[in-house]
Amino acid sequence: MGFMITKQAIGEAHERIKKYIHRTPVMTSKSIDDVAGCSIFFKCENLQNVGAFKARGAMNATLQLTEEQRKKGVATHSSGNHAQAIARAAQILGLKSYIVMPRTTPQIKKKGVIAYGGEIFECEPNLAARESTLAEVIKKTGAVEIHPFNNYEVMIGQATAAKELFEDAPNLDYLLAPVGGGGLLSGTAYAAKYFSPSTVVVAGEPAGSDDTFRSLKSGKIEQAQSQTIADGLLTTIGDKTFPIIHELVKEVITVSDEEIVAAMRLIWERLKIIVEPSAAVPFASVLKSKEKFKGKRVGIILSGGNVDLERAAKLFA
Amino acid sequence: MGFMITKQAIGEAHERIKKYIHRTPVMTSKSIDDVAGCSIFFKCENLQNVGAFKARGAMNATLQLTEEQRKKGVATHSSGNHAQAIARAAQILGLKSYIVMPRTTPQIKKKGVIAYGGEIFECEPNLAARESTLAEVIKKTGAVEIHPFNNYEVMIGQATAAKELFEDAPNLDYLLAPVGGGGLLSGTAYAAKYFSPSTVVVAGEPAGSDDTFRSLKSGKIEQAQSQTIADGLLTTIGDKTFPIIHELVKEVITVSDEEIVAAMRLIWERLKIIVEPSAAVPFASVLKSKEKFKGKRVGIILSGGNVDLERAAKLFA
Repeated sequence: MGFMITKQAIGEAHERIKKYIHRTPVMTSKSIDDVAGCSIFFKCENLQNVGAFKARGAMNATLQLTEEQRKKGVATHSSGNHAQAIARAAQILGLKSYIVMPRTTPQIKKKGVIAYGGEIFECEPNLAARESTLAEVIKKTGAVEIHPFNNYEVMIGQATAAKELFEDAPNLDYLLAPVGGGGLLSGTAYAAKYFSPSTVVVAGEPAGSDDTFRSLKSGKIEQAQSQTIADGLLTTIGDKTFPIIHELVKEVITVSDEEIVAAMRLIWERLKIIVEPSAAVPFASVLKSKEKFKGKRVGIILSGGNVDLERAAKLFA
Repeated sequence: MGFMITKQAIGEAHERIKKYIHRTPVMTSKSIDDVAGCSIFFKCENLQNVGAFKARGAMNATLQLTEEQRKKGVATHSSGNHAQAIARAAQILGLKSYIVMPRTTPQIKKKGVIAYGGEIFECEPNLAARESTLAEVIKKTGAVEIHPFNNYEVMIGQATAAKELFEDAPNLDYLLAPVGGGGLLSGTAYAAKYFSPSTVVVAGEPAGSDDTFRSLKSGKIEQAQSQTIADGLLTTIGDKTFPIIHELVKEVITVSDEEIVAAMRLIWERLKIIVEPSAAVPFASVLKSKEKFKGKRVGIILSGGNVDLERAAKLFA
């Protein structure tokens, strides 16, 4: 690893972003614990601003820009929560934001970006088109790219969710986070290393997009196949996140879409909160590996709550 | 009014039930405030034990029983949240509970009662059958009836939700609660009188079951017609709750089922929490009367989150 994420950096980021984010609640449920066979502490980042932990990393990275950089604004490509998080951070600081989104992105997500004053550039729904469109936008505007996960200031911002959880629910045996590009998982792993070293960090990943599982096995980055309803986790792990995860995360549990929907449904029904499929992946992983977690104190980061209600209804039908 | 609910009684009830209930969070949302044109503070009783404020009143009333009474157990008739709340309170205190439920009650609600160790007695789905079945059960068992709303200890327990809200969100101009039988509304009105006298309490009621609206107009109890999706509010106001509401509540806003579903959908989408149709009635009332609440600080008690996901999906389709 080249860059080193320090304990001090996470602490300072937390102070820096505090007034712009919610300290989200930690929820527990006896009936969920009964089903799972362990004590689960849910860190509710679905109740975060923009409905996802992404508000943390985007805010931290944007706040870390120089005055000179801020003048030109910020840019990113994202079909999801990071897009809104960047537009929101920019709006709060009075900067321009340029968001490249696949033309297939649900209208509701585009509206979210527009509501935060972001300017949208549509492109074809593939990574090459996203990257080339973003390059053009940056060339034209001079804006600074803030990548959704392959960016240390973003990872440091995401680490603050786990830091808060350790403060509110100490002595966790395990902490689970979902893994897509690996920004949240990297931040979570560093937060555990510094703030709760006895806690073992485990990743939950959809079986239909299990690139991190395969990458940790092979020791090099494997491409995601991306066939899962957990649409926040379709991305392949990044070249800045993979080394961190390779060093700090010992286990990835993969779960099927069926297991994800069942876990999501339990969260909706028992906790009375709305989580998106991606957010249900770690809980699905616990339910799949009950023996491993039996009787333990288990933290879970519920990553987000942005799901189209009609779509969710179909999943539950 | 014969019986007098005192400030001291509410304070003591709060201490009494504290360790058995959640201090539920108060949620705010900039995007909801933008839509509503006022500052709304949502008291999330949907995140309460058993998914509803009913846990408060049931716990308080059960704790107030004498040792002699406790030996025989508790009984009630309810098709909804009060049933689970009584079964839970009884289980916590090691008592028996006997719950009369209409045979048409959704399976999930029956399961909830059974999970808390309650014994279910099925009856025909009408008030006469419910009352006669309950009378038989009480004759047989000697259990004490704990009525869902027409019971002062229940009302005093429900008052603690508003008390907490005033502590966490002071200086509210308005506080809205839904009204069915009137237990929550009575408790809320007393809590305002004692803990935040400058706050005006307003009731939200479904137009399809607007007996409280009509009763306040005529000065006597009018029967509910009971045609609304807000299934927690079908009941006619009680003879113990009506005098309280008549004295302390000056306004009832009625809303259509369409307005209820729209409000419910906004809460799901923006707050990322699950509320049942009844719980969305006060927010629907605010959205219907924007001029009245413009620029004000408005508290809303989100009364519960027990809704069948398939049913909710159909409402949003």
